[in-house]
Amino acid sequence: MTSAVSGEISAADLSSALDGFVAAVGAEHVLTDEVSLREFRDPFAFETWDDYTASAIVMPHTVEEIQEIVRVANRHTIPLWTHSTGRNNGYGGPAPRVRGSVILSLRRMNRVLEIDEELGYALVEPGVRWFDLYEAIQAGGHKLMLSCADLGWGSVIGNTLDHGITYLPYGTNMGMQCGMEVVLPNGELLRTGMGALPGSRAWNLYKRGLGPTPDQLFMQSNFGIVTKMGVWLMPEPECYMPLWLRVWRDGDLAAVVDTLRRLMLDGTIEMVPQIINTILFASVLSKRDLWYQGDGPIPDAIVDKMARELEVGRWMMRFALYGDESVVDLRFRKIKEAFERIEGAEVWGTKYAPEQFSQIENPIEQVQAGIPNLDLNQMTGWYGGEHGGHIGFSPVGRDAVALRDLLRGMIERQAGLDYMVAMIPTNARSFVHVTLVIFDTANEAQARAAYDTSKLLVREAAKQGYGEYRAHLDFMDLAADQYSFNDHAYRRFNETIKDALDPNGILSPGKQGIWPSRLRP
Amino acid sequence: MTSAVSGEISAADLSSALDGFVAAVGAEHVLTDEVSLREFRDPFAFETWDDYTASAIVMPHTVEEIQEIVRVANRHTIPLWTHSTGRNNGYGGPAPRVRGSVILSLRRMNRVLEIDEELGYALVEPGVRWFDLYEAIQAGGHKLMLSCADLGWGSVIGNTLDHGITYLPYGTNMGMQCGMEVVLPNGELLRTGMGALPGSRAWNLYKRGLGPTPDQLFMQSNFGIVTKMGVWLMPEPECYMPLWLRVWRDGDLAAVVDTLRRLMLDGTIEMVPQIINTILFASVLSKRDLWYQGDGPIPDAIVDKMARELEVGRWMMRFALYGDESVVDLRFRKIKEAFERIEGAEVWGTKYAPEQFSQIENPIEQVQAGIPNLDLNQMTGWYGGEHGGHIGFSPVGRDAVALRDLLRGMIERQAGLDYMVAMIPTNARSFVHVTLVIFDTANEAQARAAYDTSKLLVREAAKQGYGEYRAHLDFMDLAADQYSFNDHAYRRFNETIKDALDPNGILSPGKQGIWPSRLRP
Repeated sequence: MTSAVSGEISAADLSSALDGFVAAVGAEHVLTDEVSLREFRDPFAFETWDDYTASAIVMPHTVEEIQEIVRVANRHTIPLWTHSTGRNNGYGGPAPRVRGSVILSLRRMNRVLEIDEELGYALVEPGVRWFDLYEAIQAGGHKLMLSCADLGWGSVIGNTLDHGITYLPYGTNMGMQCGMEVVLPNGELLRTGMGALPGSRAWNLYKRGLGPTPDQLFMQSNFGIVTKMGVWLMPEPECYMPLWLRVWRDGDLAAVVDTLRRLMLDGTIEMVPQIINTILFASVLSKRDLWYQGDGPIPDAIVDKMARELEVGRWMMRFALYGDESVVDLRFRKIKEAFERIEGAEVWGTKYAPEQFSQIENPIEQVQAGIPNLDLNQMTGWYGGEHGGHIGFSPVGRDAVALRDLLRGMIERQAGLDYMVAMIPTNARSFVHVTLVIFDTANEAQARAAYDTSKLLVREAAKQGYGEYRAHLDFMDLAADQYSFNDHAYRRFNETIKDALDPNGILSPGKQGIWPSRLRP
Repeated sequence: MTSAVSGEISAADLSSALDGFVAAVGAEHVLTDEVSLREFRDPFAFETWDDYTASAIVMPHTVEEIQEIVRVANRHTIPLWTHSTGRNNGYGGPAPRVRGSVILSLRRMNRVLEIDEELGYALVEPGVRWFDLYEAIQAGGHKLMLSCADLGWGSVIGNTLDHGITYLPYGTNMGMQCGMEVVLPNGELLRTGMGALPGSRAWNLYKRGLGPTPDQLFMQSNFGIVTKMGVWLMPEPECYMPLWLRVWRDGDLAAVVDTLRRLMLDGTIEMVPQIINTILFASVLSKRDLWYQGDGPIPDAIVDKMARELEVGRWMMRFALYGDESVVDLRFRKIKEAFERIEGAEVWGTKYAPEQFSQIENPIEQVQAGIPNLDLNQMTGWYGGEHGGHIGFSPVGRDAVALRDLLRGMIERQAGLDYMVAMIPTNARSFVHVTLVIFDTANEAQARAAYDTSKLLVREAAKQGYGEYRAHLDFMDLAADQYSFNDHAYRRFNETIKDALDPNGILSPGKQGIWPSRLRP
């Protein structure tokens, strides 16, 4: 682990700030006890590691309370590490980059403020989880679908702000956000887009305003605290058809991604698929020990055996069609014909009308129907059983096969770990190559090796031109370092904006490698 | 006209700066003669108005020359007003906000740097017009379609940076930009997204990078000079079917927009339509004098006559389908059935395979096929003949009917002009209500009245919660003023960023109401 940058937080300043936070939100919403502090660490960190431990957690309930907290933090130069619900597993969880930061947890701000069925949108607070928004849609009887993430406990806003992936049509290009309210580092309240015009009813309907659009500036950054966000919801289609593609040879990947690209570019597939390798799929269905107890990565012959016996193939693709049944039928035939040109490939699926969605049992088919669940969480048990953890290493590229070769080589040969991957085309033109480095969190040596491996991957992938789409807390700086065009012009640009908006450097210092001037080397 | 803010440009500073510009680009690319200065004014301004006249035009050919020009401008505090090609007609053309600014014209940077047919994108310079990119696609034999604007002489980058509207599927949410190179106000070169990672081949394939995404910060702003941009191109579909909808009663608008919203929300129509009223359509096909010579707006009975005799109805919608022919057939039937529930409504269209695109004769059907032309430019002749000009007043709203009532009332009753409108849903949820205030540019009183009317519209529409999506040079400040939530928090946010990135305030001061500190009131 890199050592935490010192926030140079004095005990006196912290104590004064805590008094201010208590005055703002009440003593019961400022947590400083050991149990709470442990709860807000990276859930996969080894138990004695404390580089990313907070000094307190403050949990406001209103925008005004956040504004007051920010003013107090400025007064005492106390770093605030914001999360919405903090379910950022694989990337550091709720833990702050700077040891001793105060966590600003927005879990209590969990109201769905508006759902408009006719126009297909919701306005939510940061503590609203996928579960909450889904339930609000159902409770209102709205015929709308939510493009949700794989795990339903995450925050809709938090996921969006970390460039998180969702899978329904509106997940394409991560495009479902429309309009924001933001508390700036000076405590001021900003509304973006049409929200800046008093009385506008287009805040959550048109993605820009007059002048520059700052919304994406508040994603993967530390420039503000998003307190409200518009989310587009898709009308329920006449027909939803979750689909599966299975191929039997590792080398079929090339034909799969080429065929998929054409079907996404021509609009036949309009959502976000996942291409999953045998071992990753097996981790959801099975336990590693049942297949292999030897040292190093599982040999290829055993992977083939798993592929056959678990019936998951060497690659499995999850995807879906949405639309009028007549169009879905045409597209299914076209898709099936295109992929089944690959020897041994199979494509299958089941059609559901909206009134049948509640009968969907497969958790992946639920996710693709916008029904959040937690079933996929069990894959982290591959190595560690109940102590399993993972690190996400997720570079972006156009070429799935070259990335597969590079990463599989490093993970198996240099780290001796199993290669577990989901290739996720968030649009027709590129893949996020989500590599899961899975380890036993109770085994310090294995945990340390997992972090070392991940950092090796960051460096080596960058040499080949691949950068991460999202970085783990422990190597955010390293990952950001790779974006070095013109002597790190992008980082210096971010620093210029950071210093202008947050001169005291109080908001999430170090987030995605962006440091305020007082903490820069 | 509002008086121009003084840039406090001293003759000595300007002279020194011009020497620097000549050293950077050569004397033949620094224009200061009267004829050139007139050419770079707002083409619709009355001839004696000089509030927005430049002192020189400098025309670089390379990024390095731009960097040097920016350094010179900083040294002498000379405002640079950037345009790509400057075809911003209806919003001020190429003219600068601050009188005496030096225009930085990027017309000579007109190279199409890359076209990738397999992945469907191009990388272009700012001087590349719709015509140029279309021709490069054709010359390369690429089976790709360009989502283009109504007039083909505009810059692809310039249109994108002004939130300009295009009409093919990729025009939805103005979504076809991917990756930028930017010269910052200090002369530094920035690449956004994956372009910040040396050797990345995903710069124009994935819309973000690691950390905040600044691309939209460089649109409708004065924070940088975009020198390269990725543009997504759509593979040619099996079938392109331009469609027309015509209705005969003004009151049918409500049913048209409700039906359209449902068909866009459910994905049946996946592009950017235009709903055009009788008079706007007539302005392309005909001359006003043929219909009416009286004072004030054309009476409703005559509009009905025009609707019948020109066969354009009271409202005409231009739109299109793209895709596999079997899907297009299904969707056409669904669309026709949905709209023809409106009494008297008709929907019709013609199917084209890609090899038939060259046979398309209607200029609107060409635009929707990505074939740029200039035919629609003639509408400005409605009042002024060859001296016709227009001002675009373009608020955004969810409700087409309420906006129609508000704007028609003001334009007819208060300004005595004809109400000419294209309602453009850039997504399923909202309309840009492009109102054309058309006048005779050779008639000073009529020209002044047109500006007065436009400003009245800005104020009155804002009282009802409607703001402009793009503002004319002459009332950028007024339009931006309406975005006043929380005591103009958005403007102050923009000013903070402006001052941080451009401390000398040299880049396009006043653009979209954003002023550098030295020029703020």
